[in-house]
Amino acid sequence: MAIILQVDFPFAGPWGDEMAAAMDGLAQDIAGEPGLQWKIWTENAQTQRAGGIYCFDTAEAAQAYADKHLARLASFGITGIVAHHFAINAPLSKVTRFQQTA
Amino acid sequence: MAIILQVDFPFAGPWGDEMAAAMDGLAQDIAGEPGLQWKIWTENAQTQRAGGIYCFDTAEAAQAYADKHLARLASFGITGIVAHHFAINAPLSKVTRFQQTA
Repeated sequence: MAIILQVDFPFAGPWGDEMAAAMDGLAQDIAGEPGLQWKIWTENAQTQRAGGIYCFDTAEAAQAYADKHLARLASFGITGIVAHHFAINAPLSKVTRFQQTA
Repeated sequence: MAIILQVDFPFAGPWGDEMAAAMDGLAQDIAGEPGLQWKIWTENAQTQRAGGIYCFDTAEAAQAYADKHLARLASFGITGIVAHHFAINAPLSKVTRFQQTA
């Protein structure tokens, strides 16, 4: 059953296209993570917050990635990281039109 | 441009199929919200936390829904609600295989 990993933290930019250019290499790396179905990259320049919403195949894959990624974020000098692991309630999510891919 | 609304809060259950049965009516109602593309219903019985990840067509639709839904959660006796509005970084999310539907 797919697992959602939800991560967000205070962030000072860059934003938008500059963020995309700065983090393209990281995104290519993350795309190769074992068990990752997809990641949504989230950003809010007004609240100075960014993060990611990830869908992994298993809880174990999500945990292994979180251990690695939170240490990497800390190595970038990022503090105040909030991370939650969640199951997807499939029947309710179906009613609200979320299409699971696995 | 689609907007992500990320909401989570302390929750004491019910979980899984019981949660789905208890909240089916609410899900049917939420499915009719203006501008909502989809909602993922999230839950974690171990950390006693639940929430939702929503994708809305516009920031205005996300804000109108958040104003309504956070008041509704409070009326259920839920406290400690965390809600963040985020833009999607489309180029990075494409690299990590997130398929935007709008």
